[in-house]
Amino acid sequence: MAPPKRTTGSGAAPWTTGLTSISPNQILVRGYRIDDLMGRVGFGETIYLLLTGELPSPSIGRLVDAMLVSFIDHGATPPSTLAALNTSTTGASIRGAVAAGVLGFGRYHGGDALACRALLDEGLAISRGGSSIAAAATTLVAKLVEANDIPPPGFGHRFHTIDPRATRLLQIAHELETDHNYTQLLRALEQALSAHEALKDRSLPVNIDGAIAAVCGDLGLPTEVADALLIISRVPGLAAHVLEEQRRQTPMRVIDPTTHTYDGPPERRIPERRK
Amino acid sequence: MAPPKRTTGSGAAPWTTGLTSISPNQILVRGYRIDDLMGRVGFGETIYLLLTGELPSPSIGRLVDAMLVSFIDHGATPPSTLAALNTSTTGASIRGAVAAGVLGFGRYHGGDALACRALLDEGLAISRGGSSIAAAATTLVAKLVEANDIPPPGFGHRFHTIDPRATRLLQIAHELETDHNYTQLLRALEQALSAHEALKDRSLPVNIDGAIAAVCGDLGLPTEVADALLIISRVPGLAAHVLEEQRRQTPMRVIDPTTHTYDGPPERRIPERRK
Amino acid sequence: MAPPKRTTGSGAAPWTTGLTSISPNQILVRGYRIDDLMGRVGFGETIYLLLTGELPSPSIGRLVDAMLVSFIDHGATPPSTLAALNTSTTGASIRGAVAAGVLGFGRYHGGDALACRALLDEGLAISRGGSSIAAAATTLVAKLVEANDIPPPGFGHRFHTIDPRATRLLQIAHELETDHNYTQLLRALEQALSAHEALKDRSLPVNIDGAIAAVCGDLGLPTEVADALLIISRVPGLAAHVLEEQRRQTPMRVIDPTTHTYDGPPERRIPERRK
Amino acid sequence: MAPPKRTTGSGAAPWTTGLTSISPNQILVRGYRIDDLMGRVGFGETIYLLLTGELPSPSIGRLVDAMLVSFIDHGATPPSTLAALNTSTTGASIRGAVAAGVLGFGRYHGGDALACRALLDEGLAISRGGSSIAAAATTLVAKLVEANDIPPPGFGHRFHTIDPRATRLLQIAHELETDHNYTQLLRALEQALSAHEALKDRSLPVNIDGAIAAVCGDLGLPTEVADALLIISRVPGLAAHVLEEQRRQTPMRVIDPTTHTYDGPPERRIPERRK
Repeated sequence: MAPPKRTTGSGAAPWTTGLTSISPNQILVRGYRIDDLMGRVGFGETIYLLLTGELPSPSIGRLVDAMLVSFIDHGATPPSTLAALNTSTTGASIRGAVAAGVLGFGRYHGGDALACRALLDEGLAISRGGSSIAAAATTLVAKLVEANDIPPPGFGHRFHTIDPRATRLLQIAHELETDHNYTQLLRALEQALSAHEALKDRSLPVNIDGAIAAVCGDLGLPTEVADALLIISRVPGLAAHVLEEQRRQTPMRVIDPTTHTYDGPPERRIPERRK
Repeated sequence: MAPPKRTTGSGAAPWTTGLTSISPNQILVRGYRIDDLMGRVGFGETIYLLLTGELPSPSIGRLVDAMLVSFIDHGATPPSTLAALNTSTTGASIRGAVAAGVLGFGRYHGGDALACRALLDEGLAISRGGSSIAAAATTLVAKLVEANDIPPPGFGHRFHTIDPRATRLLQIAHELETDHNYTQLLRALEQALSAHEALKDRSLPVNIDGAIAAVCGDLGLPTEVADALLIISRVPGLAAHVLEEQRRQTPMRVIDPTTHTYDGPPERRIPERRK
Repeated sequence: MAPPKRTTGSGAAPWTTGLTSISPNQILVRGYRIDDLMGRVGFGETIYLLLTGELPSPSIGRLVDAMLVSFIDHGATPPSTLAALNTSTTGASIRGAVAAGVLGFGRYHGGDALACRALLDEGLAISRGGSSIAAAATTLVAKLVEANDIPPPGFGHRFHTIDPRATRLLQIAHELETDHNYTQLLRALEQALSAHEALKDRSLPVNIDGAIAAVCGDLGLPTEVADALLIISRVPGLAAHVLEEQRRQTPMRVIDPTTHTYDGPPERRIPERRK
Repeated sequence: MAPPKRTTGSGAAPWTTGLTSISPNQILVRGYRIDDLMGRVGFGETIYLLLTGELPSPSIGRLVDAMLVSFIDHGATPPSTLAALNTSTTGASIRGAVAAGVLGFGRYHGGDALACRALLDEGLAISRGGSSIAAAATTLVAKLVEANDIPPPGFGHRFHTIDPRATRLLQIAHELETDHNYTQLLRALEQALSAHEALKDRSLPVNIDGAIAAVCGDLGLPTEVADALLIISRVPGLAAHVLEEQRRQTPMRVIDPTTHTYDGPPERRIPERRK
């Protein structure tokens, strides 16, 4: 189909939204009074409600929160963060610098989770054709190696040999019994990668993009909802870096990503009452 | 001071960040292992941690969550949402449309909370000079009326005669005993406005911007942290509208904000187990 | 190939740019001193220089200027302009509102020129296989009708039965003798569309997107350069709408695209000395 | 006055635009048929028409073109350009990366021209009070030194001891006899700065921001039009850097602004026929 033409301007078609109803003294988010949600339902759960139409079960709510926390920040080196910092140093507003950062969630940054989801969908289609999940993983890895598509999206990391976020997210999913086909295939792919003779010398463990892809798949979230969750989850990180830039640095500085160090608190434990 | 000049390019100064430490297989957010935060600390609480440097107490965490939920969406008519929808209809990516929406958090949209904070700071300065909070409120209202600064930021609403979000947020703050000077002054201003003879015919109850301003003030959050919280809280709403636009509408449609209706679920109750 | 991983942070690779050399008291744009370009070479020609690496001949320079002018504004109804206006009404800065507008150059808005270029490339590939341009056009139109891809990108317009910009741009290209294969195929497609029996009742003349696609093709400009030219050309229009919004309107207004009218000067002639 | 409230949604007020009239088969930009402008009026002149409402005289048109060219690019180190490059390396679209760059025209970047304009307006107000321009400049410089506002906006440069763009722009303005009060004051300030005993060891010649501020002032352009011209003028530079990033570099690279070099053509002359 050709790209659609804009309809003529003599009058615009009526349209509807199913998200939020605004009437005098009443705001309904997906049918729930917002003042009923406030104080009872967490921010992560309300995000899930807005994006999917339903409140999550407490288990799923906890998993979604864990996912949002896992991606909230990754230091000052992601290019989206550097775009936000370079915008902030010009004296731009917080919103302008955050918007510049959001624009950096491109094909390659954050996009790995979406690419991994496509890979998992491909593997599950093979499996639905009659193969076991393990066999589908072996087939897929052979194909990836032949196409030189190594590391595949969702596996390996430039900094981490074991991505602590992926390990933890999959553990939580397991504890909450929300790990199904997607997670099984993800695990099977990790094993098939480590078993493949051409990849003997490489360590390609599941990374956070892979874990998010599998968890969203098992939750039945469409790819674009996963995409939205990633953007939402990183906005606080972008905002925090922009606030820090405003407080600590002089305007118009040259931001060299290779010369920064961490000077925050050393490792500390979460107070017991929270566990 | 003149706007600073960019330092010369022959080498950039080393710099530091106190937010997130990235080392092989370990990510510390403000000193806490991210895999420790995941599953134990909610998204709203982790946002607070990132922005302020410390985990909130459970009470404050609940209040921050309520504040984030209160501002998560306000239907399809805010101009920031319309900017996101108009961007989305051109076929832009989710991130592009969300970024366009974020840019709409200007002086007048979301900015009322910041303007109200300035008003409250002014009133508390008067009070620190020896007046009671009530007397400071009366002084301030007289000044606002004389300057024709009515409605003042944080009071009155075009749709709502009572803003249900403000009522609820202040109620939660009261229950959690986090309401102090700022909230007292906000209340006092509401009373002084309704008592002022020139405003007899106007209803100017506290709105959500006012409630957020007071709550952030009582929590000791600087204005720019409140600003960041507002941007963060609305991103899920923007993303949800963009996803809905992609699913329901044809590209390049004429978006007339006056012709839309809500077709989501009718009012429903939060399941009991959650309360 | 898998999405590339970011290289490690221990040091960044040296890199080069061929655009602009900055040394003390000397700025070279593509090798020309910027103070030599100023006053001698027009803004449109310098844009061409920056994007392609070479100064255009005077003929091509005139054509590029005509192309940039043709797309400079299309009133207040394009969704990119509405995104800019909705952002401006929140009190955002000029740059914030312009950026929101730029984000609206999506697949469907401005993208028609790129889609038409792909169509023309497809037709020229058919023609290189031995068909005449006319025969290639007939083949292509049959294919488009079968795929229900009508109107094809570059043809037809919701407002205009004859797009005055397209007519003029192709006339200038003809006068300057820069119309080659792409333009010939565009013309042949227009004829084949009007000759096709299934499209008898439809008027599908070349529109400005089609004319720009053909002109850029004949100039040998890659698709992404054409994309950049379209974005560049509309920024002044976006900025002018934002300035008008700031001057004429009150903040936070409801912007209904169906209720605006033009109140600028009536049609007037360009002073003779300019012709 | 309090921030205005958004009008109610039951119907939006009719509104007008004086920029561009769209009717079937006719597009008028500020009253001129766009197809009449195309090929006759340059891009820079049409930008001036759109922003100010009138076509420039040929002299002013040439000056505006020179101003737009002067600011078209400043290499890869301005933070706005780095924001665009960091966005591009994530795989973002050209428009997304350009928008991120536009957001970097903050208070400190590009804003110097606006700050210098304010300084010149202050000086001209002093002069209207009865002082000569030279005396007003001396008064202003004394004030700037006392406030430690050195370098003042519009004077001095981190790379250039003489900014070749400023020299050339002021020379063109002089040749075209468009240099009036603002330019005279700019020159007088430059002299007063070099004559001030506390600044003996500093070289603070007029820079491009100062020259643009004076030229726009003498043309009677409001500050916000000057702001818009700066944004418009740099968009081609941003787009060119993004295209170069896409062509030359691998995605997700670490962009260190201190390690790049210029590898474009060496200095060359503009062909004679153009002069």
